[in-house]
Amino acid sequence: MNDVLPGSVGLVRPQTFHSAAPLPLKSGAVLPEFTLVYETYGMLNADASNAVLVCHALSGNHHVAGYTDAADQEGTLGWWDNLVGPGKPLDTNKFFVVGVNNLGGCYGSSGPNTVNQKTGKLYGADFPVVTVEDWVNSQARLADHLGVQSWAAVVGGSLGGMQALQWTLSYPERLQHAVIVASAPKLTAQNIAFNEVARQAILTDPEFYGGHYYEQGVVPARGLKLARMLGHITYLSDDQMAEKFGRSLKDGALKYSYETDFQIESYLRYQGEKFSGYFDANTYLLTTKALDYFDPAESTGGNLDAALASAQADFLLVAFTTDWRFSPERSREIMTALVHNGRRVSYAEIDSVHGHDSFLMDDAQYHAVLRTYFEEVVL
Amino acid sequence: MNDVLPGSVGLVRPQTFHSAAPLPLKSGAVLPEFTLVYETYGMLNADASNAVLVCHALSGNHHVAGYTDAADQEGTLGWWDNLVGPGKPLDTNKFFVVGVNNLGGCYGSSGPNTVNQKTGKLYGADFPVVTVEDWVNSQARLADHLGVQSWAAVVGGSLGGMQALQWTLSYPERLQHAVIVASAPKLTAQNIAFNEVARQAILTDPEFYGGHYYEQGVVPARGLKLARMLGHITYLSDDQMAEKFGRSLKDGALKYSYETDFQIESYLRYQGEKFSGYFDANTYLLTTKALDYFDPAESTGGNLDAALASAQADFLLVAFTTDWRFSPERSREIMTALVHNGRRVSYAEIDSVHGHDSFLMDDAQYHAVLRTYFEEVVL
Repeated sequence: MNDVLPGSVGLVRPQTFHSAAPLPLKSGAVLPEFTLVYETYGMLNADASNAVLVCHALSGNHHVAGYTDAADQEGTLGWWDNLVGPGKPLDTNKFFVVGVNNLGGCYGSSGPNTVNQKTGKLYGADFPVVTVEDWVNSQARLADHLGVQSWAAVVGGSLGGMQALQWTLSYPERLQHAVIVASAPKLTAQNIAFNEVARQAILTDPEFYGGHYYEQGVVPARGLKLARMLGHITYLSDDQMAEKFGRSLKDGALKYSYETDFQIESYLRYQGEKFSGYFDANTYLLTTKALDYFDPAESTGGNLDAALASAQADFLLVAFTTDWRFSPERSREIMTALVHNGRRVSYAEIDSVHGHDSFLMDDAQYHAVLRTYFEEVVL
Repeated sequence: MNDVLPGSVGLVRPQTFHSAAPLPLKSGAVLPEFTLVYETYGMLNADASNAVLVCHALSGNHHVAGYTDAADQEGTLGWWDNLVGPGKPLDTNKFFVVGVNNLGGCYGSSGPNTVNQKTGKLYGADFPVVTVEDWVNSQARLADHLGVQSWAAVVGGSLGGMQALQWTLSYPERLQHAVIVASAPKLTAQNIAFNEVARQAILTDPEFYGGHYYEQGVVPARGLKLARMLGHITYLSDDQMAEKFGRSLKDGALKYSYETDFQIESYLRYQGEKFSGYFDANTYLLTTKALDYFDPAESTGGNLDAALASAQADFLLVAFTTDWRFSPERSREIMTALVHNGRRVSYAEIDSVHGHDSFLMDDAQYHAVLRTYFEEVVL
């Protein structure tokens, strides 16, 4: 497929892995069976030493690179296509890259909008709350299925970075490198607060129906739109918003009404509207909870050094100066704890205007750091 | 009244000013007549030189100090009671202090929840969008009514500070001092973005009914609750939230559900719930628009120096280190422009953990600055 577009993995098709064995969850619940949808790019080498797992963030999915004709995201480029492909920083000529839609997702993996085999109906709100640890356990089953005993690297930004970190704790011997971008060792009260407002927007939408809206033939679009609008504020930096929108008016004059006066309002409404048209509200709820719950140091009384003691991987941490959702300080917390544990850690703090969203951007310095790191990975 | 409680102005009763003359608004609309509800503390001196106007912020009102038996806020202490009273920093033994509920408010002044004399029905969404300039014009009528030709000072925090600044531009000869706390010369794109999410929460609430919910016997409580929860995040500092709530659990264990796991969630829900029980959604919408629209430099092509050239007052500006809604940088913008215009400006940057809400707090350093400033005001 690699010859369709220069530097692109080209047309990709999602694949399916079904695990018939039950998956015990951190909550105590058990998922009797599950399906993961994934994509792969590049070729697994003979000793299966070149596999890289890319973990997605809040609204991401398995479609990391190339383009697809899948009905739910037709024609769209993968969300990290600028990073993953032949000759790109995460070079598919060297690596076999795997993207996976997490459990609880809304892109084909077992989740609220898939059928509960027990009842024959869509799970809806009955899909169990899953955690980063649960995701990693399910991804380990996928690794088994793919014949990958040990990942060359597990990579992710934001919530994806939390999964990469969790891999080093849950399966220390099953990865060589963890690449953690724009992430944090746990959410702050403010982070949780923003998630909670987003959740309340969805939960109090009259069309939420306790999470069983599918049966009613509606979706809680208003709530999901609000959640996404709010999310966007936290993904962008204050400076970038000022630069991109400032106080520019949408239609040249103030309207003295509740129509959109300013460009920023129009932008947020558009982003919210678009998102609420394709993303699933139950998945949004569930994923924000996974974010809130992530806290490896919970079991060590808040001691992150102790929590990360079992990690064996080498680490690359990347943070962005204008990211106020997960500021560089948060990455440095992880770095410090890893250094205290004698791990090999590279850390890059990238000067970028794009706030938290920087991890998705094609920034030259950022990509150079990733390229260099991946080039030096010995298979 | 001053002898009821030491340091308190005691029991206060709201008063009413009715202006029968039409008020032309910035939007081009005209308010045919209007009423303002206000309270006063202390005594106006013989030459009416000791009057201080206190302007309120987003959710404030005329009840600045003392306690009241008014039905809509029974027993509550004024929102700036720690500042205003006999012997307090804004000393009612020296000053005659006036608190006023702004036009469009929901505490008795003409606003969406009052009767439109033209129709005999509640205004609802038909109450015109008002601006900071309009508020100041209506307050000038109140000053006339009170016999106050020139305020010793106009004082306000946040949106209240914008009114104080506007007074120096609209009526440069009618105030001696402007005290502007935790404010900004205009909102940033990010500020507007937060307001817009709050507005969308209200506007898309099915019980909003285009702003005519009174007639339906309902209120858009869900939307207003979300707006307030979001607001609270921006009023507190990240550090303060971390210190006060951190990741503390509400009931000792994670619930793996959408119930409240963390204290911060419980706090926000409570604040939102409480607020939606007493505040008016139309007023919230209208007031956030007044915030968005405030921009004295709009008429001078963004040149704040030129915009503030007509000011004649002396100024005290106060900002708080952890305020990320209106950071000290924003106060310094005002200060710089005033200094360029040769105005007398005092500026204090207070080290406080309470974020934007610091302006309401009883912080020793902050209150000492205000006390000193007001003591030096020559009547």
